Amino acid sequence: MPVFLNTKDADFESAFQALLGAKREDSPDVDDTVAAIIKDVRDRGDAAVIELTSKFDRQDLTADTLRVSEDEIEAECAKVPEDARRALETAAERIRAYHVRQVPEDHSWTDPEGATLGWRWSPVSAAGLYVPGGLASYPSSVLMNAVPAKVAGVGRLVVTVPTPDGVMNPLVMLAARIAGVDEVYRIGGAQAIAALAYGTETIAPVDKITGPGNAFVAAAKRRVFGKVGIDMIAGPSEILVIADGDNDPDFIALDLMSQAEHDESAQSILITDDADFGRAVAEAVDKRLETLERRAIAGASWRDFGAIITVRDLDEAARLSDRIAPEHLELCVADAEGLSDKITHAGAIFLGQYTPEAIGDYVGGPNHVLPTARSARFSSGLSVLDFMKRTTLSRMTPGALKAIGPAAETLAQAESLEAHGLSVRARLDRLNES
Amino acid sequence: MPVFLNTKDADFESAFQALLGAKREDSPDVDDTVAAIIKDVRDRGDAAVIELTSKFDRQDLTADTLRVSEDEIEAECAKVPEDARRALETAAERIRAYHVRQVPEDHSWTDPEGATLGWRWSPVSAAGLYVPGGLASYPSSVLMNAVPAKVAGVGRLVVTVPTPDGVMNPLVMLAARIAGVDEVYRIGGAQAIAALAYGTETIAPVDKITGPGNAFVAAAKRRVFGKVGIDMIAGPSEILVIADGDNDPDFIALDLMSQAEHDESAQSILITDDADFGRAVAEAVDKRLETLERRAIAGASWRDFGAIITVRDLDEAARLSDRIAPEHLELCVADAEGLSDKITHAGAIFLGQYTPEAIGDYVGGPNHVLPTARSARFSSGLSVLDFMKRTTLSRMTPGALKAIGPAAETLAQAESLEAHGLSVRARLDRLNES
Repeated sequence: MPVFLNTKDADFESAFQALLGAKREDSPDVDDTVAAIIKDVRDRGDAAVIELTSKFDRQDLTADTLRVSEDEIEAECAKVPEDARRALETAAERIRAYHVRQVPEDHSWTDPEGATLGWRWSPVSAAGLYVPGGLASYPSSVLMNAVPAKVAGVGRLVVTVPTPDGVMNPLVMLAARIAGVDEVYRIGGAQAIAALAYGTETIAPVDKITGPGNAFVAAAKRRVFGKVGIDMIAGPSEILVIADGDNDPDFIALDLMSQAEHDESAQSILITDDADFGRAVAEAVDKRLETLERRAIAGASWRDFGAIITVRDLDEAARLSDRIAPEHLELCVADAEGLSDKITHAGAIFLGQYTPEAIGDYVGGPNHVLPTARSARFSSGLSVLDFMKRTTLSRMTPGALKAIGPAAETLAQAESLEAHGLSVRARLDRLNES
Repeated sequence: MPVFLNTKDADFESAFQALLGAKREDSPDVDDTVAAIIKDVRDRGDAAVIELTSKFDRQDLTADTLRVSEDEIEAECAKVPEDARRALETAAERIRAYHVRQVPEDHSWTDPEGATLGWRWSPVSAAGLYVPGGLASYPSSVLMNAVPAKVAGVGRLVVTVPTPDGVMNPLVMLAARIAGVDEVYRIGGAQAIAALAYGTETIAPVDKITGPGNAFVAAAKRRVFGKVGIDMIAGPSEILVIADGDNDPDFIALDLMSQAEHDESAQSILITDDADFGRAVAEAVDKRLETLERRAIAGASWRDFGAIITVRDLDEAARLSDRIAPEHLELCVADAEGLSDKITHAGAIFLGQYTPEAIGDYVGGPNHVLPTARSARFSSGLSVLDFMKRTTLSRMTPGALKAIGPAAETLAQAESLEAHGLSVRARLDRLNES
């Protein structure tokens, strides 16, 4: 049973705070292990990666077989059924069409003092995408990371994916190919992150690493942050559905379960202004949990972290939503756009009853890599901007330097940075001489 | 003496790699201390902050005096000389005018399938700006952090600044006031970062923390990353000047020294296509080092990390520059814009001989918080975007869901996420019924 809350209840605030504060994930402390692995890869390169892959993935590689060959990729892609291939292509096209609109513009202007100012954007030269092996090896995530990188103009895009016992996921290989990935290596874990960050004899280093992974991968990403760029460290997935009574309880139940089935630590919350509807959804969930393939996982998530909150009105729902700052937010109400305008903190918003969150996981177009654990308060989903950086530009004319140089000199003196001031003063003196 | 390199020399590549790889900073390992401080502040709130401030800053505070009162700020501001006040106002206006242009636009469109897609930006609700005490307490940095936050629309902007022995920096207080800072607390170190991230009885928590600090502050920011957003961890400052022989050696010497005087770990590099000019700059540096107030610091930086590199031509200079990926890049050549177009990785570019880097530190307009230690390969200077986040939006019509829903269902099945597929299928079945 999920927790049932009602904002009219006297103890609502403490119960809601308990829900917000629930610790859903116990990350094992693997930092020492990861530090040792990174050092080993830095010291010994390929040899370390090969040994660790033999140990963890039971696969004996050589420097020549670390990389998945074009022929192998071709062979894997050929195994994908035609309908799945077409679906991946549809997804890639739609993700590309959305992300192309994110490509930022350069700007340049001349200000009243005559200074020319501006900035320009450029892609990172090389990016690495970590793809987990096993159950969580999702071709859709390959597209969601690789397509924005390629849209950004990343020249060299590398995928690492562990293939324990030599088993590859044909859909992952096809997604990599469709997205234009340049190199694929059959390695995983902290050793893959270390190889991407520092390079080995066979694997050239990259500048930015994105993609989800287990505790070892997350710890390794934290450690190499600074040497390379990384994306956010993702926590378990979450959905908040705000629905009025005019919805099919089974639709909403399925939306809640589509997060819950990811992970026992996932969280699904319904906020409704109709208590009867809330009970109907709870019943619909129970019914679905009788037959869902992943009912053990979804049931545990729903039991431990699920919640149904009854509110007085939708304005109250919006305020609670901003406190939750959900990764995914479905608005299944008559005026979804109007309600959306009242909400500030959310990774992605899905409007109306025909926009189940699962559409956004695959083919909607927006990215499905989104801020979890209330981090939508300060961060955004993955985008083209994550694979680009901005260089600012300025040019002073003699006139501009005369106009604003003295202020710089004054501030340099106030900060006791004499050479800063002199570098301006020497030029002003020259200009005043002539 | 700095190191002199010439790309024509046989050992150039190894010498250049040594320069790139030079370890300029030994961060002490303060992680355990910082972890304990953060835990203490989380457990005991104000009481812990007050004790730690007494211990480290020799200042006895109460919950009532943690915050600097409006009267105190007023009194400090009144101490600032008129020319410095005007210079700060000029700087703030120019920084604001530049950053206003960075405010991103929202987008929304309807695609051929009838889906409405888009995104919108919103500011973080509350941001904290760490300002160091003592020597590195720069009012210009207050402006560079606070102005973009206010331009972004941050509702609550908090400054923490340690005031050891009760000594405040009037210019810092005035910069905070000019930039529109809402609250100022006289605390510093890891305890300030912990208070900003987790809150205490007196200090409400923020969502994002920016600003420079010592090793304790940097370690604390790394630790609270995820609970709140942080900016990049800044390393020692750097400048690369690319200059042809048609420059005044003393101007270039002063520009090199204006980084070197920051810190013994700072790095100043000149690349020139004129070996004689390089030697003339070295002589001009030596002359300036005889009299500069901070000659001990600047001299050590120049001796240990300075370099003058002679190249065959400016194309070679551009290629070396991209390998250095400098924080600051001055282009003092006849066609600075043309050379700039050949460069991809740099935090900020200053064009022409009348644009000394120091202009950018204070009044140019672009931000002076820039990526160090080669991180311009993958990251950007501080901007309005650092105080905003993006929410993606999507709405499917029945027609759009019919068009793309089946592809989502196929991919959900391929990823063994049954509820994902069913959440789409249930709606498609309903639509097909009607």
